[in-house]
Amino acid sequence: MIILMKPGATPLEVERVLGYARAAGLTPHLAVEDGRMVIGAVGDSSAASAGLFEPLEGVEAVKCIAHPYPLASRHFHPADSIFPLDGFTVGGREIAIIAGPCSVESRQQLLDTARAVRQAGANALRGGVFKPRTSPYAFQGLGEEGLEYLAEARALTGMPIVTEVLSIEQMEIALRYVDVLQIGARNMQNFPLLRAAGETRTPVLLKRGLSASIEELLMAAEYILASGNSRVILCERGIRTFETATRNTTDINAIPVLKSLTHLPVFLDPSHATGHRAYVAAVARAAVAAGADGLLIEVHPQPERALSDGPQSLTPEEFAALVHQVRAVAGAVGRCLVSSLAPAAQWSEALHV
Amino acid sequence: MIILMKPGATPLEVERVLGYARAAGLTPHLAVEDGRMVIGAVGDSSAASAGLFEPLEGVEAVKCIAHPYPLASRHFHPADSIFPLDGFTVGGREIAIIAGPCSVESRQQLLDTARAVRQAGANALRGGVFKPRTSPYAFQGLGEEGLEYLAEARALTGMPIVTEVLSIEQMEIALRYVDVLQIGARNMQNFPLLRAAGETRTPVLLKRGLSASIEELLMAAEYILASGNSRVILCERGIRTFETATRNTTDINAIPVLKSLTHLPVFLDPSHATGHRAYVAAVARAAVAAGADGLLIEVHPQPERALSDGPQSLTPEEFAALVHQVRAVAGAVGRCLVSSLAPAAQWSEALHV
Amino acid sequence: MIILMKPGATPLEVERVLGYARAAGLTPHLAVEDGRMVIGAVGDSSAASAGLFEPLEGVEAVKCIAHPYPLASRHFHPADSIFPLDGFTVGGREIAIIAGPCSVESRQQLLDTARAVRQAGANALRGGVFKPRTSPYAFQGLGEEGLEYLAEARALTGMPIVTEVLSIEQMEIALRYVDVLQIGARNMQNFPLLRAAGETRTPVLLKRGLSASIEELLMAAEYILASGNSRVILCERGIRTFETATRNTTDINAIPVLKSLTHLPVFLDPSHATGHRAYVAAVARAAVAAGADGLLIEVHPQPERALSDGPQSLTPEEFAALVHQVRAVAGAVGRCLVSSLAPAAQWSEALHV
Amino acid sequence: MIILMKPGATPLEVERVLGYARAAGLTPHLAVEDGRMVIGAVGDSSAASAGLFEPLEGVEAVKCIAHPYPLASRHFHPADSIFPLDGFTVGGREIAIIAGPCSVESRQQLLDTARAVRQAGANALRGGVFKPRTSPYAFQGLGEEGLEYLAEARALTGMPIVTEVLSIEQMEIALRYVDVLQIGARNMQNFPLLRAAGETRTPVLLKRGLSASIEELLMAAEYILASGNSRVILCERGIRTFETATRNTTDINAIPVLKSLTHLPVFLDPSHATGHRAYVAAVARAAVAAGADGLLIEVHPQPERALSDGPQSLTPEEFAALVHQVRAVAGAVGRCLVSSLAPAAQWSEALHV
Repeated sequence: MIILMKPGATPLEVERVLGYARAAGLTPHLAVEDGRMVIGAVGDSSAASAGLFEPLEGVEAVKCIAHPYPLASRHFHPADSIFPLDGFTVGGREIAIIAGPCSVESRQQLLDTARAVRQAGANALRGGVFKPRTSPYAFQGLGEEGLEYLAEARALTGMPIVTEVLSIEQMEIALRYVDVLQIGARNMQNFPLLRAAGETRTPVLLKRGLSASIEELLMAAEYILASGNSRVILCERGIRTFETATRNTTDINAIPVLKSLTHLPVFLDPSHATGHRAYVAAVARAAVAAGADGLLIEVHPQPERALSDGPQSLTPEEFAALVHQVRAVAGAVGRCLVSSLAPAAQWSEALHV
Repeated sequence: MIILMKPGATPLEVERVLGYARAAGLTPHLAVEDGRMVIGAVGDSSAASAGLFEPLEGVEAVKCIAHPYPLASRHFHPADSIFPLDGFTVGGREIAIIAGPCSVESRQQLLDTARAVRQAGANALRGGVFKPRTSPYAFQGLGEEGLEYLAEARALTGMPIVTEVLSIEQMEIALRYVDVLQIGARNMQNFPLLRAAGETRTPVLLKRGLSASIEELLMAAEYILASGNSRVILCERGIRTFETATRNTTDINAIPVLKSLTHLPVFLDPSHATGHRAYVAAVARAAVAAGADGLLIEVHPQPERALSDGPQSLTPEEFAALVHQVRAVAGAVGRCLVSSLAPAAQWSEALHV
Repeated sequence: MIILMKPGATPLEVERVLGYARAAGLTPHLAVEDGRMVIGAVGDSSAASAGLFEPLEGVEAVKCIAHPYPLASRHFHPADSIFPLDGFTVGGREIAIIAGPCSVESRQQLLDTARAVRQAGANALRGGVFKPRTSPYAFQGLGEEGLEYLAEARALTGMPIVTEVLSIEQMEIALRYVDVLQIGARNMQNFPLLRAAGETRTPVLLKRGLSASIEELLMAAEYILASGNSRVILCERGIRTFETATRNTTDINAIPVLKSLTHLPVFLDPSHATGHRAYVAAVARAAVAAGADGLLIEVHPQPERALSDGPQSLTPEEFAALVHQVRAVAGAVGRCLVSSLAPAAQWSEALHV
Repeated sequence: MIILMKPGATPLEVERVLGYARAAGLTPHLAVEDGRMVIGAVGDSSAASAGLFEPLEGVEAVKCIAHPYPLASRHFHPADSIFPLDGFTVGGREIAIIAGPCSVESRQQLLDTARAVRQAGANALRGGVFKPRTSPYAFQGLGEEGLEYLAEARALTGMPIVTEVLSIEQMEIALRYVDVLQIGARNMQNFPLLRAAGETRTPVLLKRGLSASIEELLMAAEYILASGNSRVILCERGIRTFETATRNTTDINAIPVLKSLTHLPVFLDPSHATGHRAYVAAVARAAVAAGADGLLIEVHPQPERALSDGPQSLTPEEFAALVHQVRAVAGAVGRCLVSSLAPAAQWSEALHV
């Protein structure tokens, strides 16, 4: 149920609506839209009716929408969600680029990569320390040691850091370090993890499952939103199809579909979506042309030596070329990359050591 | 690395091999095959070579297999794995049927269903208490209260009980009650959960992910095996394809493929694999004809009132007809259903109350 | 529009209904159901209404069904379609087995295979002479020479013969020889070819396309039925999915789904559906257990020397074992294989030469 | 086998190589690359060896490539294939846009659409007259009458015309009118049709099958090339996956993959690939950003009245906006749209009538 308050509704009036919603067994969520408060009251709405809220003071209109993902939908929040991420904003006109190695392998490897991607135009640093590996015998990540290196890289470059967590326990450790929690494709429907992430106030980068429908991705986001965390970034990373020429099939359609259904920012990860270095830049350009709000790119100083995902990792030089191309495409669709002039100057000393 | 001991190898000789394996950074696993010990030494085997083990006393042969799932494969354990499950065995000539409601909804619903499926020939009782629901607003299960009812149903009918867990925390609660832990399709690559299940000594029913390849299913099983739990049942439950006439597409090929690659028992869940009551029996018969070792069937006393998965749940009468048909097909392929005469007599009083 | 005539309706009354249907721009098709005539009047039915037919003498009821495949559906023809095929019937209680080589490679290879499959229990002989090969440089089939060999094999063994055609021109040649026209997966939506096949009176074995939905398969059959040929056999042969352990994924669900939607006989081709000799028998058993009316099996005297599809072809011995297993499963589901005692005696001399 | 001639090789020397290739049972194809002749000798090359050609005069090098699509691959023809299409070129720096209605419905509808798309920047006109409809009862196209209207539209606007053919018979009729033959997704592996198209000298727009792999698309193109027609345009039009939010899933990866494997021009059809008007422009922009050489767009003056594919057809105004956006993206990736200034002036009178 979506309750639209009048422009001049007072905090007391809003509070009364919240109380009525809770009394009806619903969980209310607040948003601001065009200068007025909007309340999304979610849960089993069979017990409540619009008639409950309509007579309350300050209420302008009540919409009963039987929507599978009310909080994620544009019914609740028609405008794009824009939120700050340690120095820049996500979801607005500017396009953000998160880059870094698949796995944090060593202090040196991470700091080298961080400097290189920072100089080439990255806005945030990614690096896996808890790795979801198909084989139990494969490298499983450095764990908390890797988080220390990520924190050091942030101090050095000023970039916020992003890492994936596979369990609530890992999340609790990661929260002491990271700026963005990543929930990966294999955990897109790990509902206890989604709820736990929803109880934090840390932005969540939620990747689409290998065979998750767009609707299921939005319902997974709804788990996080319904638990109270409104800062969710959706990320298309390729789906599993019959085609074997690439690791996955980039569902480029998902970009405009998601942008029309939800107010949440939508990113694309062309590294996983293609699985081949040679195709990453083309698909990154396509993502921006199609309306994506950001990119997630794997970069490694020596891809041929990477402990994981080497074939899809770019060299720093290839990444710099990609940023250059993506900037041009962003301009062609009326957008721009996150401005990095100021920070680049600010940290130039560290970067050039 | 697979180390085959001589028929008369002594425990001391076996122990020495285990010690060498550990010293080489490998984790040894023991199996018995044709009256001799077999040691599977898994991990990063780059540091070890066959030459390390061949000279040891009691060792007959060493095979270096670069296999993605050594412990699950028939290279390590050529014969079928057979293990007891509270009154019957799984993986042998007898075919087991696990039946019950999708969700435990109430004490009455569960006990009614348990009695009905017991009488119709079920060997174990399934019932969800922690439900992985696509929507955060859908019924999420009764939690521990549901486990109490399952335990009561076991006491009443003598059937072992099976329930799904979505997180390590839920697993710890469930372990106090259940005979078999189920890890569902959405968590097939929830690696921390797989490891934790591997550290228990409770059999695990591992369902194939919606878009998991057969190899990925075996590598997920390998996580459990490598953590020390050898009692894993694999379960095909339909994969996601373009076809929309059914909820999923039963990959019947997976039955003979899995049976040729692995020694683990292979079940099939025709309820999820079809999603429609009308097709469940046909696919259950097909599974047994193709070589499945067991079935997982959703039954509800009043499917039209079920809180989840009603359209694919059978009535007790339909389930009894299915058991009858499946018994005939089992006979045609040289197998039989788990004998339930004795237990049925034993619990007949309780059942007919 | 389905027009049900009264039990005692006269030919004149039926003819009047046909005339009214044609005058309304519809094409009428006749069927007999429970001793009464049923007329399916198909086409753009916007111009006609039930009221047009209801007052006519002999008409009992008129159903307006907006169905995408009226003639193929059980609305038009509730009972199973059963039709004779040169010595046996298809679609009834008996299960038919069509076997033979992927390609007719030589006179000797074909006659050897024909004798072997006949003795092992095959009811009809398949063999490709016009091959749909992915590469233009691969063996494309013997053409009409191969048809001569097929005709000779029929004379020798008494089995009706089946071959695939890729174009109308090839169909016209094949019609001089074959008993059943096969339209393959790649041509399932070759609409001009479907129409042309519909204008013959030769039974058509229509294979499901690699990514055709069940509904599309039925609409393809509708093309043939609407052109006047009511003898269509549907054949599931595996669909294309992400799984690479097998050549295709057998959609075993399709068997009960098709049997519930259509009156047409439903076969399954486990050779293409698995692509591996080792899995063919298991899936053949599953097909029969699920309710298939027949099987299509590739057999080659020396699979390792086959010019096409060697890995999925059975040896005659493996085929004989399959027939034995399938017979047992057929019995378990209340069916039997096409009786071949009489013909076997009749042709025994030829077979044992 | 690829035979590279020396820069100064004489026609006589080339001819001798061709003769040797034919004598070895191969079919030779000629290309020019960097000022020298290249001969691709295709067929069953087991009978020939490099040693046969190396000693011949004028031969510089012989490469034996066991390639599934030698003529389509960049091994044979490393540079992009560029060929003229009635007023512009395809495959070069300029991006071409083919637009028009799904079906030619009437003279008025076609001429209106042709004028509108011409003015908005289209370079060629598409329109279906032989429609591949899933249902035999749906509108099947105007046939030759529609071709007359297409020819009239060409005379009026100067745009070359493109239409789909489903059979050899239809192709023979269409060849009297059209500039480009389209072979649709359902006929991508209609091998007799591919061969027949290869025997013409009319450019062929070959669409990828719904579940065809990229390699299969290239092998289908090879059928046309091997039959002697080198002017083939490949067209990605979405593949069939589990996602139902869009009609198909645009495989945007296919653009850079195809561009790296083949020298043939690669187009994308965002209308079929999405199935929804609202997403067409975003995916058109993505295609150009990813490196596509052209677009195929459905436009209808009144999409809500279209006899087929209305939901995915753009209005002329929406199409004009798309062209505007695509032009900007083309510039951002160093390309441009086919220049239409001159023709626009030339036909301005006709257009503004």
